[in-house]
Amino acid sequence: MAIDRKKQVLEAATNSFSLFGYKATTMDQVAKLANVGKGTIYTFFKNKEELFDEIVSSLINEMKREAEEVIDPQETFSENVHRALFRMLEFRKEHKLTIKLYQEAREMGTPAVSEVIDRMEEVVIEFLSQRIEKAIASEAIKPCNPEMTAFVMLKMYVSLIFDWERAHGPLDKDEIANLFELYLIKGLSNR
Amino acid sequence: MAIDRKKQVLEAATNSFSLFGYKATTMDQVAKLANVGKGTIYTFFKNKEELFDEIVSSLINEMKREAEEVIDPQETFSENVHRALFRMLEFRKEHKLTIKLYQEAREMGTPAVSEVIDRMEEVVIEFLSQRIEKAIASEAIKPCNPEMTAFVMLKMYVSLIFDWERAHGPLDKDEIANLFELYLIKGLSNR
Repeated sequence: MAIDRKKQVLEAATNSFSLFGYKATTMDQVAKLANVGKGTIYTFFKNKEELFDEIVSSLINEMKREAEEVIDPQETFSENVHRALFRMLEFRKEHKLTIKLYQEAREMGTPAVSEVIDRMEEVVIEFLSQRIEKAIASEAIKPCNPEMTAFVMLKMYVSLIFDWERAHGPLDKDEIANLFELYLIKGLSNR
Repeated sequence: MAIDRKKQVLEAATNSFSLFGYKATTMDQVAKLANVGKGTIYTFFKNKEELFDEIVSSLINEMKREAEEVIDPQETFSENVHRALFRMLEFRKEHKLTIKLYQEAREMGTPAVSEVIDRMEEVVIEFLSQRIEKAIASEAIKPCNPEMTAFVMLKMYVSLIFDWERAHGPLDKDEIANLFELYLIKGLSNR
């Protein structure tokens, strides 16, 4: 019973954060949407921050899980990195909550929301860094700073998937994989 | 005389845009700062948009000129691209007006300002695209979409010079050149 109620509260809060954003969501609203008394919410969560934190943590875990699922040990480093990055950015594009949070961070700069976005990016970078370290160790790729390389990879993907698309229309998954291979793995040089 | 007055107006307006941003600058303010009557400004510029446009156009020309100056035909493609990109982004970092405009676009999303930033980025991309086309023609680099390649290069530089620095401290010019060479020109692959 308590678990069901907690689940109800989490679902209602996820809906409210997705529709109205973090700032405009109140505990009253969540109580109404969840069809529970406000006191019930406080038996599970001290405040809005705590409620938001739990939702974001499970969102991030879900994103990590999905990235791990697409990794195939038989595949090359670059194919796996591409798959994981693509999956994590698709995740961000598909989920109503992440879409709303990116919009809120961009338009209002809400600090609690910007922190969440930083946390999501750190998870992506951490995930890639581990794969990059292994690829350096096995000499599949040249020695480099794993964290910076992960950062550059993420930025390139975000540029292609979000910024390039806005002006030039979407790129499909294979095109992005080929661009990633050309620009970052093989390099532009002919020599 | 008219030329001196026009120059006075342009200098005053540049100062006002740099200090208060585009939105908060009024023709009254510019007249006061330039020490001329408001009517005098209107003999040169129909409105604030036109005044802003003239200032931005000469700013962009100055940026292009500076990028052209660092190009050395004896140098490699990647060294020249690095020099030009670095110079253009330094320009953006050094000029009070560009700093203010980027801040205004980020914090307030003023449309006229966002357009200017897009224009500046287009100039950088156009400048690089021409060099990339030549490098493809001379087979120095692999066939690729010149505009997209220019876009990816710009985004990588902005990521390293602005975003990476914020969290990890500045990278010096040689480090950036080496990273550009590693990531985009030579590629990460050991094979």
